[in-house]
Amino acid sequence: MSSPEPEPEPKAPEPRGGETFLAEIREQPGALLRLLEHDGDFRRVAALMHRRGARTVRMVGHGSSDNAASYGVYAFGLVPRWTAFRDSISLTVHYGTRLDFTGSTVLALSQSGRTPDVVEYVERARAAGALTVAITNDPGSDLAEAAEAVLPLEAGSEHAVAATKTYLNQVATLLLLAAHVAGTDRSYAGGVRLVSEELEGLIPDLERRVIPLAAPFAFTGRMFVIGRGPEFATAREIALKLLETTRIAAEPLTATDLAHGPVAALDPLFPVWAVASDDETLPAVLEAADRIRATGAALIASGSAAGRLDGAVHSLPIPNLGSRLLSPLLSVVPGQLFAWALARAKGLDPDRPRGLSKVTLAR
Amino acid sequence: MSSPEPEPEPKAPEPRGGETFLAEIREQPGALLRLLEHDGDFRRVAALMHRRGARTVRMVGHGSSDNAASYGVYAFGLVPRWTAFRDSISLTVHYGTRLDFTGSTVLALSQSGRTPDVVEYVERARAAGALTVAITNDPGSDLAEAAEAVLPLEAGSEHAVAATKTYLNQVATLLLLAAHVAGTDRSYAGGVRLVSEELEGLIPDLERRVIPLAAPFAFTGRMFVIGRGPEFATAREIALKLLETTRIAAEPLTATDLAHGPVAALDPLFPVWAVASDDETLPAVLEAADRIRATGAALIASGSAAGRLDGAVHSLPIPNLGSRLLSPLLSVVPGQLFAWALARAKGLDPDRPRGLSKVTLAR
Repeated sequence: MSSPEPEPEPKAPEPRGGETFLAEIREQPGALLRLLEHDGDFRRVAALMHRRGARTVRMVGHGSSDNAASYGVYAFGLVPRWTAFRDSISLTVHYGTRLDFTGSTVLALSQSGRTPDVVEYVERARAAGALTVAITNDPGSDLAEAAEAVLPLEAGSEHAVAATKTYLNQVATLLLLAAHVAGTDRSYAGGVRLVSEELEGLIPDLERRVIPLAAPFAFTGRMFVIGRGPEFATAREIALKLLETTRIAAEPLTATDLAHGPVAALDPLFPVWAVASDDETLPAVLEAADRIRATGAALIASGSAAGRLDGAVHSLPIPNLGSRLLSPLLSVVPGQLFAWALARAKGLDPDRPRGLSKVTLAR
Repeated sequence: MSSPEPEPEPKAPEPRGGETFLAEIREQPGALLRLLEHDGDFRRVAALMHRRGARTVRMVGHGSSDNAASYGVYAFGLVPRWTAFRDSISLTVHYGTRLDFTGSTVLALSQSGRTPDVVEYVERARAAGALTVAITNDPGSDLAEAAEAVLPLEAGSEHAVAATKTYLNQVATLLLLAAHVAGTDRSYAGGVRLVSEELEGLIPDLERRVIPLAAPFAFTGRMFVIGRGPEFATAREIALKLLETTRIAAEPLTATDLAHGPVAALDPLFPVWAVASDDETLPAVLEAADRIRATGAALIASGSAAGRLDGAVHSLPIPNLGSRLLSPLLSVVPGQLFAWALARAKGLDPDRPRGLSKVTLAR
């Protein structure tokens, strides 16, 4: 009698989807370099801001664009020491309030340049005396048309619904504009070039590392993502990538706000991602990490000071470039790739989040 | 033979806890009236703001205080048409950036007056030329000491960790100060008095209604809370109450931002609470409600236009007082009481959220 056919070993299903999302994450080093070719545009806009005395910077945008604006607060605050803030769109657009826009620069962020209320905000702000600047991938868009000046994002055509290279180039655009305003553009342009080089090595390395790391989170329904200072923008953007592609209810919080209430919701099934940068905000992030560990929640550490967070179950450090404002250009990438890997581990296609389209025309 | 003893009917366990939280919710009408006795303080601070030309309003605070600041953007924008924004604390405190504070009023919000980075922000802003105003329950606190002027919150001693009457009085304080700046204080003081009267009837009515309504959410782990305009502050505050007392991962979003990504995470086990006000932002909220229903997510409607949201599984309307800025003083209350009822339905004590203390000294 012949021995029975051996039972074939079951194969793990090969994750599928997310090819576009991954390809666009990989394009980020090149997209950053393209931005550096626009030195003349940055110089021109910065000169206009000085000439018009438009030293109050109002930023508007939704989703990733609004996350980049969180970074802009620090780019303008730390470099030329100008006040920048995320302005209310509804006050001007829905309620028709006529604020005094003299002395203001409006930076309007939109990948497509077609976000309706952002276009309308720019039209009204311009009519009320603001210097208006469109920051968009499409210099022929309605937004570019409505604004007095345009800074092209140069991220190139982006097809994945969840923005990656557009976000990175928005952050870099805000940094380079702030640097031109302060006259320190040369060193920051060099910094952006360095980030591009670092990313060339970091991305393939992270692609490999995130796959086994994401697997244990396949049934996770909720997460907090914390950061402070310029890395709060990173926390917001990582949370949004998780929401869009992995359907985790991921909420961004500053390290300090976590202690003012939300920490009460944590338990061992509610992990926290902490973006820790090696700068003056690190003590606040370390203190928050202590509170998180006390709840039994699993801690995922990223950022240039990831190694300083004791007890993290996973660590995704980035190289320390010695600049608070360059770090966020690197530290968002582990989050993008983790979202890509986790979506696939969950059997979701990160290229096609349900209910979203690339250009959002919601009001 | 005697028939067997009938099986005793099992009794549902009586929910316990939350007496303090509920008592403080009930104290809100009285707390609002106490604030109205401080007309002279409001007038003095408003006059100082005019005299110093301090027309840019920078608000700082954490947790509920920061949520109230979201409302302040609209109070100052809609009434005197001044620009107000939630300023970055870390830029000034952690990074030591010296911004130009001339022409700025700082409104520093802290229940206890002891939040360390808020006190430090005020010291630095004052030294750099800002007009600084402490808004606190404790006029003898470090914060009151550090600021040039004090507006007492008059919420009275608050013992529940999750703030209720303090939040309401913070919102009313920002409204009354904005009204004094614009010289329309009489009509808004009358409006606050009307809110106090409405609340006297609304609170007991809602107490009864929220108990059966909360029960089906006893196993809910996540929720979005949406609002737009001044009601975005309400959405933020309701989300925070849910996080603190019910341990739901509740994330606040503007109605428009929901469409820019987060909607992809929704499904029938991920309910959404929508605060709909009968004002110019209603179309944006109705559009968001359509997107929410398309995902199968259950919709809970509140606000003065709750009845306009088709297909809501629950509706908690508030009376329409015909004022965009008075509505948020009423519309937060259904959220407070829903959190109270849901915490008890979950067997949690809303008076004692785990890992929190009344005064947060986190940096």
